[in-house]
Amino acid sequence: MSLIVAKFGGTSVASPERIQMVAKRLVAMKEAGNQVVAVVSAMGKTTDELVGLARAISKNPPKREMDRLLSTGEQVSMTLLAMAIEVLGHKSMSFSGRQAGIQTSDEHSKAKIELVHADRIKQALDAGCIPVVAGFQGIDKNGDITTLGRGGSDTTAVAVAYGIGADVCEIYSDVDGVYTADPRVAPRARKLDAISYEDMLELSSAGSGVLQSRAVEFARKYKVVIHSRSAFSESEGTYVKEADSSMENAVISGIAHDTSEVKITIRDVPDSTGIAARVFSALANNSVNVDMIIQNISEDGRTDITFTCPEADLENAEEATKAVIETIGARDYVVDNNIAKVSVVGTGMKSSPGVSAKAFTALADANVNILLISTSPIRLSVVVAADQVELAVRALHTAFGLDSDKVFEETMLSAEELEAKKNKGR
Amino acid sequence: MSLIVAKFGGTSVASPERIQMVAKRLVAMKEAGNQVVAVVSAMGKTTDELVGLARAISKNPPKREMDRLLSTGEQVSMTLLAMAIEVLGHKSMSFSGRQAGIQTSDEHSKAKIELVHADRIKQALDAGCIPVVAGFQGIDKNGDITTLGRGGSDTTAVAVAYGIGADVCEIYSDVDGVYTADPRVAPRARKLDAISYEDMLELSSAGSGVLQSRAVEFARKYKVVIHSRSAFSESEGTYVKEADSSMENAVISGIAHDTSEVKITIRDVPDSTGIAARVFSALANNSVNVDMIIQNISEDGRTDITFTCPEADLENAEEATKAVIETIGARDYVVDNNIAKVSVVGTGMKSSPGVSAKAFTALADANVNILLISTSPIRLSVVVAADQVELAVRALHTAFGLDSDKVFEETMLSAEELEAKKNKGR
Repeated sequence: MSLIVAKFGGTSVASPERIQMVAKRLVAMKEAGNQVVAVVSAMGKTTDELVGLARAISKNPPKREMDRLLSTGEQVSMTLLAMAIEVLGHKSMSFSGRQAGIQTSDEHSKAKIELVHADRIKQALDAGCIPVVAGFQGIDKNGDITTLGRGGSDTTAVAVAYGIGADVCEIYSDVDGVYTADPRVAPRARKLDAISYEDMLELSSAGSGVLQSRAVEFARKYKVVIHSRSAFSESEGTYVKEADSSMENAVISGIAHDTSEVKITIRDVPDSTGIAARVFSALANNSVNVDMIIQNISEDGRTDITFTCPEADLENAEEATKAVIETIGARDYVVDNNIAKVSVVGTGMKSSPGVSAKAFTALADANVNILLISTSPIRLSVVVAADQVELAVRALHTAFGLDSDKVFEETMLSAEELEAKKNKGR
Repeated sequence: MSLIVAKFGGTSVASPERIQMVAKRLVAMKEAGNQVVAVVSAMGKTTDELVGLARAISKNPPKREMDRLLSTGEQVSMTLLAMAIEVLGHKSMSFSGRQAGIQTSDEHSKAKIELVHADRIKQALDAGCIPVVAGFQGIDKNGDITTLGRGGSDTTAVAVAYGIGADVCEIYSDVDGVYTADPRVAPRARKLDAISYEDMLELSSAGSGVLQSRAVEFARKYKVVIHSRSAFSESEGTYVKEADSSMENAVISGIAHDTSEVKITIRDVPDSTGIAARVFSALANNSVNVDMIIQNISEDGRTDITFTCPEADLENAEEATKAVIETIGARDYVVDNNIAKVSVVGTGMKSSPGVSAKAFTALADANVNILLISTSPIRLSVVVAADQVELAVRALHTAFGLDSDKVFEETMLSAEELEAKKNKGR
């Protein structure tokens, strides 16, 4: 018998019918002798719809109100799931972030979980219930509802798992685990049985959408074992846990890619002290999450500064860039939407020289043009043209010996599941 | 300067545009030097949609979950209204039932307000805010969300008004006050400037949809002055308060009608002791709200028992009736959907004999057939065929001297407002 936290995302609870499927799955886990706590996201597109309502009223809604508004999404799905469990003859109770004792900082829209007072959840478990907890939300010291930012439900699940001392935090989604690359892009990608927290963290940050990086960070800090698996099949997925001898001894764990960033180049910038500081302070002050930065070699005392940021931040970035160009006396700026970031990730990189050389050679052989480069101790990222992203991922996947003998479509997913993935949009 | 609670119903906040209109109105009240607290219902059809989701999952959803589910409706509208107020340059904060300190009994779906800890609302007022409170909901001693039943937002408004010691509780709706009859049915109906709690309570119970009877009851108990007025015009509405000399000295305050009930007749019932008790215990146990009851004169030891109940309770009523017919040995039962209840209401009735005689004469002269009769000290109700309801209301309105010199459509409402009323469906 295990104590399990099972988190289901928005796609898994998008309709009453899907909620009933999730309920069946939870009941089966319980009837197999486990104790189960469910954590849910909002149904399907609910969060987007609520954001739309707020935007119709205010360009810049107060964050306290926005958090309260968005938190209703999970409060709807959790009650419906609890109802569906009761229909199957098992006791259930839903818990909002407040009722589940999720205490957070007071940074609305991006609050951090500080404590989990899991007493009520434990009591419900002891009473034979399947508790259902609202993901994505908590309560601050003023008693106001906070949200953890998009994807925060994964973090809720990990925090609840820590709070109740669960054996495992199962995160169900429409993919059946963590792959060496996105199988839609690299058909020879392999599912990993296990991956270390460190590698998973880099993959998540580099664009692998399977798990939220903050959830992985929380899990690493509190040693919570995550099991990333499919909501639509019974097969084992990927365990995310501390590195141990059972894990594959590969230098590289996987190749991630991210097409959601844009590249901005500020041209003809005077190359003097403090200019970069002024540029990136202006961007930070306008809430732009700058990712990669490069500065060209100076020529006649002028240079170009290039950076990438999420496409969602583009409006803010342009605003800040326009203002700063005037004050520093640069010529102009150019936006490039058609880029993709491809990252090679692996803890083994630290002790294995030559990864960069191998990567650049593979890309050159595939005729992929590198626009930007950035590195960390366990990650190498390059920016390429968007239409070269598949070429780049496949070349790197092959070069680092990650290719499976089997081609993905034939083995891993049904046609229906593939279709569902495509419809998901990313 | 007054301290005002202003309650807006679902129609008034049905879209972002309408929410912006409500915000303007609140800001105007504040800028005129008043302190204002808003209470809101859920947007338009939200509550019905949430009920639909729950029904898709469970025929009989657990009430704790249902209350939590429905409470999200007001939590959405309150945040949007707070955002809209901020856009207009005024401070606002939204408060759920819990945050507003609305402490209730733990009877889910029909909880009663026990206490209002209005400290946070008062603090927000002192800080210059326009607080926005979610109607319809509170919190019980377990920390679980409760709801007050349909229309409970009026009760929330009155309770908040009492909790903060407001000068008046303004209840905004799509009608501009309390009329001597429904103007759509009786075109010569007059708006009342003021009405006593007692008369308003009887009118509300008898089908006048302007104010919820529980809210009026609460207001009477705690001496809260209600001002029922239009969300779409600036004109004064009707004050509901303790009877005083300023009120019109009419015997009859108004004529109410209600087409939402059904009539059930159990035929050929053995006329022996305890039979009625068994019938109405069975109905009560199946949650049927029985309104009027009559029993025919017995013939050969057999009789008929007739009662009315809300159409919404019909399924439960038929279930209970079928079961009880077998045990008491009655023949069968007949359901009549095409009925209407028409009530003559007035505190003055107590000291003015002959009201019944005058009413029955007026109805007879108008060729209206009376199916059932029921009375209270300040109300006389008759059940008539649904297609005779307008005839009956007009005849009684004229007979009791309530007719205005002017015909309603020409004087009181614009064509647009009349259209809006029609679209409301009742």
